Formats: sequence, C-alpha cells, structure tokens
Amino acid sequence: MGECLKNLRPTIQEIERYVPGKSVEEIAREYGHSPGEILKLGSNENQLGPSRLAVEAIREAAGSVHLYPDVDAAPLKRALSEYTGLPEELIVVSGGGMDGVIDTLMRMFVREGTDVVIPTPTFSYYEISALANGGRPLFVPRGEGFKIETERLIRAAGDASLIFLCSPNNPTGDQVSERELRSLLESVDALIFLDEAYVEFADRSFAHLVLEYENLVVGRTFSKAFGLAGLRLGYALMSEAIEREYMKVATPFSISRVAEHAGIAALRDREHLKESIEMVERGRRQVSRGLSLKTYPSQANFILAETYPYLATDITGELLKRGIIIRDCTSFRDAGRYLVRITIGREEQNERVIESLNSVV
Amino acid sequence: MGECLKNLRPTIQEIERYVPGKSVEEIAREYGHSPGEILKLGSNENQLGPSRLAVEAIREAAGSVHLYPDVDAAPLKRALSEYTGLPEELIVVSGGGMDGVIDTLMRMFVREGTDVVIPTPTFSYYEISALANGGRPLFVPRGEGFKIETERLIRAAGDASLIFLCSPNNPTGDQVSERELRSLLESVDALIFLDEAYVEFADRSFAHLVLEYENLVVGRTFSKAFGLAGLRLGYALMSEAIEREYMKVATPFSISRVAEHAGIAALRDREHLKESIEMVERGRRQVSRGLSLKTYPSQANFILAETYPYLATDITGELLKRGIIIRDCTSFRDAGRYLVRITIGREEQNERVIESLNSVV
Repeated sequence: MGECLKNLRPTIQEIERYVPGKSVEEIAREYGHSPGEILKLGSNENQLGPSRLAVEAIREAAGSVHLYPDVDAAPLKRALSEYTGLPEELIVVSGGGMDGVIDTLMRMFVREGTDVVIPTPTFSYYEISALANGGRPLFVPRGEGFKIETERLIRAAGDASLIFLCSPNNPTGDQVSERELRSLLESVDALIFLDEAYVEFADRSFAHLVLEYENLVVGRTFSKAFGLAGLRLGYALMSEAIEREYMKVATPFSISRVAEHAGIAALRDREHLKESIEMVERGRRQVSRGLSLKTYPSQANFILAETYPYLATDITGELLKRGIIIRDCTSFRDAGRYLVRITIGREEQNERVIESLNSVV
Repeated sequence: MGECLKNLRPTIQEIERYVPGKSVEEIAREYGHSPGEILKLGSNENQLGPSRLAVEAIREAAGSVHLYPDVDAAPLKRALSEYTGLPEELIVVSGGGMDGVIDTLMRMFVREGTDVVIPTPTFSYYEISALANGGRPLFVPRGEGFKIETERLIRAAGDASLIFLCSPNNPTGDQVSERELRSLLESVDALIFLDEAYVEFADRSFAHLVLEYENLVVGRTFSKAFGLAGLRLGYALMSEAIEREYMKVATPFSISRVAEHAGIAALRDREHLKESIEMVERGRRQVSRGLSLKTYPSQANFILAETYPYLATDITGELLKRGIIIRDCTSFRDAGRYLVRITIGREEQNERVIESLNSVV
C-alpha cells in the first residue's frame, strides 16, 4: 500500500493542472460590475445563444433521462449524414465534445514515447491529451504571419503516428489550403487529425477528403456555430478502416440523451445556423475595420489582434475593468505576449469591445 | 499514406466491436407488441423515473447551453461533498459516467503490457478499457457461489497497477466485506478501484476508506439510484495524492451544464432517493420469494437468478415473446450459460416478470 503512484505514467508529470479562468460572477464581484453587465467574448461561444429548436428538444428529453441512451446514437448519425453529405458509416459521435474524439484517437495511436506533431500556436488540448496518453509532442512553430508550413511538418513527421491540424486554426483564424493538406496527406504515414471546430464560419470544408484518404480524420463540434457548447457534443468523419477500430475503443453510451436530441434539433434549425454565420461574417468585418490594432484575417468566429507594444495580459486586464472578457493568448505555446483573441458577437457587443480596446491602446 | 493503421495499438485487435442490443422499438416490432407494452428490466435503470427536481433543473438549464460549463464543476462537487461527507478536494466528477472515471484511471496507470486484475464475472467495461489502453487484463474467477477470494486476488496482483472490485458486484449483487477490502488494500501496491455504482441499494459504503488508504478510488454514478442514466454523470472519491494527478489527465469541461444542474437537483431530492431505495428493497424480497428459480442475495437494484437446466439465452428469448427484457448473462466472462439478471422495478412490474419466468421454466 502507498506505492500505487510509482505506476503513474511519467509524462503526466509534464502536465500542469488546468487553472480555470475566473467565472463571470467572480469577475463581476472583483471589478464591481453586475454579472449581467459582463460581456464574455473569451471562449468563442455563440453570442446568438442556442437554437430554439434545440432548447425545446432538451426540455422534451428531460422526462426520460432515467433511461440509458442508445449505444450507437443512430438517429444523430443519420442527421449528421444528411448535414455532411457523408455516409453514416464514416461518422462517429462523442459525448465529450471534440476533446472526446481526440482522447479516443490518442488511445488508438499513441503509446509510450510516440511522437505527435503539433504546429503552434494552436488549441492546447492536443498537447495535454498527447502527454496524458504517454505521447511526445513535437511542436512545429508556424512561419511568418503564422502561416502553416507543410514542408516543415512533413520533415518533422518522421515516425509520428498523429499530426494535428486545426483549420480554421485557433487562435490565428486561418485555414489550410487544399493543396497543402493533400500534400501532407500524401507524404506521411501518420494519421492527420483536421480540427474543423470552426468550419461553419469558413469558406470551405475538407471533410469530403475522408473519402479519398484513409489517414484523415476530420473533427467537428456542436459547440460553436450550433451554440451547444454546454452539452459537450462532438463528432468526427473518417475512413471506414479507421471507423472500425475507433468504435472498438470509444466509450460506449457516451452521448447523453439530452445532447443527442438537442444535436438533432440543432441540425434541423437551418435558420439559427444561417443567422449565426451571418452574424459572424458581418461582425468580423466590423471588428477588423473598427479596431485600431492590427488584426489577422479570420475564417472563424473570433479575430486575433496584436497588442504590441502593450502586453496582451495588460490589455485583457484593462478590459476586465470595463467588464469585458477577451482571451489573452500568452498561454498559447509560441504565440508570444502580444496577441489577444476576440470572439465575434452581435453588432452592439462588437461595438463595445472595439471602443474599449481602442480607448485602452 | 495508407499506412497509418500500422501505428494502431495492438491490444485493440482483441476488442470486439460492441454489438448493441435491440431497442425497445425493434423488439416491439419483431414480437408484435406496442412499444408501451414492453417491460425493460435489462439495464438496471431506475423504474421510478428521474427525480422531478432534476427534470425541472434540466428544463431550466436548457436556455444557456450555448455557454461552456464551468471547468471545475465546483457547485456539483460541493453538493457531492455534502452527500458523501467527504471534502470537495477528494471528489472528481466525470461527464462520461463511471466509464469516464475508469478511462481516466487507465490513462494514468496503464501502459503497454501493464497488468490489470479483474475478478470475474463482473462489469465488462473494465476489460474493454484496459485493452483500449494497452493493458493486459488478468481475470481471476470468483470462487464457489461467486464469492470474492481476496487471497487469490493478492496472489494474482504481482506487478499489476490496477485492481477492479465492483461492490455490490454486477451481476452477482454481493458486496465485499470490510475485512477483505482492508486486507487487499494493505497487501498490494496496485490502485484499487472500488465500483460502488449500486451502493445506495446496499447496507453500507466503503467510501470513507479513501481517507485511510492512498491506493483506493471509489467510483460512483448518478445512473442508478438517482435515475439519471441518460445524462452520463459519474464521480469518484480518492486520496489527495491521486486527485492531484487525476485532475491533470481528466478531460476538462467534461460535465455538461445540463448534467451538472440535474445532478445537483437530484442530490437535493432526498424523497426520490428514499422512494427508489425502498422500492428496490421491497422488490428484491418480492422477486426472490416469488421466483421458482434459485436467486442470489442482492445488495443492488437487480437480482441474479439461475435458469439451469434451461439456457439463459432460451429463457430471455421466451420472455421477449412476452414483451419483457431481462439480461442474459452469457456474455459476462466466467458467468456460464445459466444466469439471468433482472432489474428490480415497481410491484406490478416485478409481478409480471415473476409470473412470466415461472411459467416459462
């Protein structure tokens, strides 16, 4: 007894415990605002709120939550097949959001010491999940202007079993090009995970390429355009060969009944989706024109802005005093100390953040 | 390209894809019943339904599902601390039910070839999750009358990093004794996962032992007594040393907002919990007295019964014709072919299953 921790996976020592950001209530209290005054543009949530149809579906499903969900979430897969245009057999769903898909791929492809290629700066969970599964993250910084450099990725790939590509990328907002993606897919043996969490706000998706490339998995989520971040619902598209193995390893019954019904309803609510996308397209123009800071072109529901010569941490701190939460990107590996990420919201919300940022710098 | 599967973890080949049982709708169609006539006593769901307070909480939370949940689910942990009498710092919550807790422990303690001790017959997910994480399950069959034999477990433990104990055990219904549990905890270096999914229906819990033993983790769920199986909400109790590492590895934001609010409300609804437990206590007496089959004493919300000389598969098939679903235990490793597991329900439900089973054998 007492020696059980000697069996702990060593790479876990490299993970720092996640320190949660302050809640809206805490910020309100600390800076003397009422919680209703706080403008939260730090987590890329849908500022239109959830689809009305999804909310109704949740309320309807509430009465039967004593029953286990279907093991295969077939009705949700059917709805996703219609939405994506891909056959049900190539679709998996996850009750842990996109993170759940990533965890499952790690279980499949990462063993002690396996290399995992991560172009930086990007979504931080790739690194955490790789370490939690004993993998060795290989960071490949993006080039000038955060441009992805596939040649460098191909050289870095080596024996790696997984390569993560986020497109549109969090926090830079740009998409990989089809030429670059195909070149990468054709040059490496590794599985490529293309994270399309923000794809509804982008010009195009590369999901159809799973029909051509066995080594491509495309991750998707209901957390952004569909406004269901609180339900933790994700899905992924992949070749039949990968799906067969994925389904052996994925936790069964992982989709809550409530999330499944909400997801199906949200997919049906094309009006909400259209409004959400249009709000973001208008808002991106509004913010990039209105801000006196340098901004990066974005295909997502956020905009990356440079705060130089001011530290991002100082700028986000100043905004908190004004009751506005935006994301300080200092914690993104290889992002430096002069970047902030602003979630696009409704016109009046965008106006408030533009005015505040411009007055601070 | 095309070689990505060569990096697949080899033990995954040993996992069979989960074949979902037939849904209520499929069974109704196949056997000529209406879905409302089907009596589903195969999955140990709460036959009283969910807590009314939980249903209300879900309906209230529906409007804010576009927002991410709190990363640390602090309000739920506070409510669980009150319910269990243990400090918040020793509690973790999981959005994947008990299975999510198991997956996280596997990530922490299982590497390629690590031994995982599993007394059989028991809940099948321990084996699947061990293989999915590269572990080597060591099966230790229970003794005469499915009695747990801790001496055999201690001998089998060797270098194992994890030992699974389910108490009350699924499908046998018995609890481990405190003497046996302490002896095991004191004799091995492995972490012991004590699965108390059914503990609310039992005479006692061993959760308080996490204050004494660093190598004990006690898993719990909202799926049984609290009637929230459809929400996939689990939690676990553990020493501070284990909790510190667990929180680095657990998927953050894994609890849906809806599940968190429902869980808090269900913990507050002591009346629903009391009624659920009393229904099960009465029902166990009713079923064990009424059945002409040999039954095992149970501390859970189900009863194990022997069908010998009839095959369990034949008996469950006959019951399906009568519109009743009970669990054929043939798929439980080392359970043999003559056991069925019957979920305890309301009085009239129990009466229907007793009459049908007695008339079939």
